[in-house]
Amino acid sequence: MQFVATEHQHRRLNPLTGTWVLVCPHRTQRPWSGQQEKAQKNELPDFDPTNPLCPGVTRPNGIETPAYESTYVFENDFPALVEQVPAPPNSDDPLFQVAPARGNCRVMCFHPKSNLTLPTMTAAEIVVVINEWINQFNELSSKYAWVQIFENKGAAMGCSNPHPHCQIWSCSFLPTEPQLKQERLRAYYATNDRPLLGDYVERELQRRERIVIENPDWLVVVPFWATWPFETMLISRNNNKRINDLTLDQRYNLAVTIKELTTKYDNLFQCSFPYSMGWHGAPTGPEHAHASSAHWTLHAIYYPPLLRSATVRKFMVGFELLAMAQRDLTPEQAAQRLREVDGTCHYLDK
Amino acid sequence: MQFVATEHQHRRLNPLTGTWVLVCPHRTQRPWSGQQEKAQKNELPDFDPTNPLCPGVTRPNGIETPAYESTYVFENDFPALVEQVPAPPNSDDPLFQVAPARGNCRVMCFHPKSNLTLPTMTAAEIVVVINEWINQFNELSSKYAWVQIFENKGAAMGCSNPHPHCQIWSCSFLPTEPQLKQERLRAYYATNDRPLLGDYVERELQRRERIVIENPDWLVVVPFWATWPFETMLISRNNNKRINDLTLDQRYNLAVTIKELTTKYDNLFQCSFPYSMGWHGAPTGPEHAHASSAHWTLHAIYYPPLLRSATVRKFMVGFELLAMAQRDLTPEQAAQRLREVDGTCHYLDK
Ligand SMILES: O=P(O)(O)O[C@H]1O[C@H](CO)[C@@H](O)[C@H](O)[C@H]1O
Ligand SMILES: O=P(O)(O)O[C@H]1O[C@H](CO)[C@@H](O)[C@H](O)[C@H]1O
Repeated sequence: MQFVATEHQHRRLNPLTGTWVLVCPHRTQRPWSGQQEKAQKNELPDFDPTNPLCPGVTRPNGIETPAYESTYVFENDFPALVEQVPAPPNSDDPLFQVAPARGNCRVMCFHPKSNLTLPTMTAAEIVVVINEWINQFNELSSKYAWVQIFENKGAAMGCSNPHPHCQIWSCSFLPTEPQLKQERLRAYYATNDRPLLGDYVERELQRRERIVIENPDWLVVVPFWATWPFETMLISRNNNKRINDLTLDQRYNLAVTIKELTTKYDNLFQCSFPYSMGWHGAPTGPEHAHASSAHWTLHAIYYPPLLRSATVRKFMVGFELLAMAQRDLTPEQAAQRLREVDGTCHYLDK
Repeated sequence: MQFVATEHQHRRLNPLTGTWVLVCPHRTQRPWSGQQEKAQKNELPDFDPTNPLCPGVTRPNGIETPAYESTYVFENDFPALVEQVPAPPNSDDPLFQVAPARGNCRVMCFHPKSNLTLPTMTAAEIVVVINEWINQFNELSSKYAWVQIFENKGAAMGCSNPHPHCQIWSCSFLPTEPQLKQERLRAYYATNDRPLLGDYVERELQRRERIVIENPDWLVVVPFWATWPFETMLISRNNNKRINDLTLDQRYNLAVTIKELTTKYDNLFQCSFPYSMGWHGAPTGPEHAHASSAHWTLHAIYYPPLLRSATVRKFMVGFELLAMAQRDLTPEQAAQRLREVDGTCHYLDK
């Protein structure tokens, strides 16, 4: 029998983390009588006087959200990370290791209207979001080793407020995932004298099996080692190291790419497609300011939970938590579906 | 200011995987207007003629589930892993690494009645489950490097059938988590000449801050490095290496411990408490049969998603997926709550 990736289970290595994912095509054919999500349908009013993220509404702590007209950034009222915190005592015991963690948490509204999302905003409005990401990054990266810009979109991804917004959590240390990437990207560079993701982009452009969107500045692929069913990676083609390296043209093309990708996502199952997404680039802060970032390539990762429809998600549970990541269709199958679905006209506008 | 773990964010190291978890107490005070789970309430009939896991019901593939009276094991009708599968071709490219994966997937019903769960079964009935785990493990471990016994309980944990059951996925290779543990446990043993979890149990018994249940054979703790809000680890105190090492007495005490732990879980929020749990012990199969297992200690891990109530769970999203695991209360706070909640009388019997 000959090996066929869409028929035969196998493992694939994520070279960015060194972990394997188990690919089991055909698992989606099993009957599903488990939990159904509520399909998110963009049915909010544009202004909700009880929503603290709306312009002019007073937040629970008494602070009034100003009548902002584009983006609006404020310090998270319930921050996971704060700057002023005593360091834990040192421990010699290898089984009870504690380390300090200082930081900062901000919330950034994308738009004054509650009933918009990135795919239903204009490219010009998305450019404003990107510019504000860069402003924030400029400020925070001078102080912190890691500035994590991320968006949790949709109730299925634990988003507790439907107003379009993202978060920025800054850390005095490198968290687990960036630390792993830092090591593996550096090792690849040491051997190959090229950034890993630069090589990866080239090979994906040759193989053409996992491409979702391509333009001169950006490539969107379902990575060869994707874990979530419709996971994608949006990679800079200009050897950018961090989000604040982007030229004006690259920012505009990024806005267009984000709009196209998220429109495809919404159109795939005709719903406001939930995901967590975030940016990864070279570490920052005084500690990393003088270190080489040649091994890094700026990229965003999208982790969407949906698997079969607007209401049936992939659960990363049992085997996944205890043993290893496992997926139910091949990355190539997911890429083909995303490539084929319309990315120019949102289903609400049809 | 002095460091107080219940007030000040900090990081803790998981010595079994080498990854850090960010501990942010007080985050549970933020308002929650996000997704609510449906509280699971043990309201099923004991027999459902449409449920393929019930005795005497015909499954979608035409096979009839026999009229079983205790446990019942069958091959998963939609297996993620099968034994006969061609191996993928070798790849020299470090960015496109593929590896073979052979295996087997079984489903094991715990009891003929649909409306029972481990906490509402008797200890004697749980002993039958443990014995069948051991039977299965004996058979499968002769062939496979890793036999993952795991239970997904509750719709919130992706369980697609409410009948009490677990799964057994066997692999021709060591999956990511066991592989990491294998390396780290071995390294600790090489330095300390003692199994890591043996030392850990001793120190938890001295510190007494994270103990949930203790008896001569078993210790249940919220690990110092727990990720999920009410995560626990059930650890052998007898230097057992694998589940099939257990004596009859240890099995009986295990049944009593499982009943007590899961009763505490159900009583915590007065619901059928969802979780994923599974067993980890020394690797098996021809490859590991002659290797030393001195560094291993048999243990089970429980990953429950609930955070605040029967309907509000912890979401591992944005920051957690992109940066690192993060928890919203300290392991000591979780342990105290689990220690104090009744473990002898189930709330349904009150
Ligand atoms: O096999 P089931 O119960 O249908 O499926 C469940 O458990 C599997 C193993 O953890 C997961 O891969 C699935 O995402 C989950 O829904
Ligand atoms: O800060 P939020 O939106 O209330 O919370 C959400 O994002 C956080 C960061 O990923 C997670 O820790 C929470 O579990 C999630 O519900």
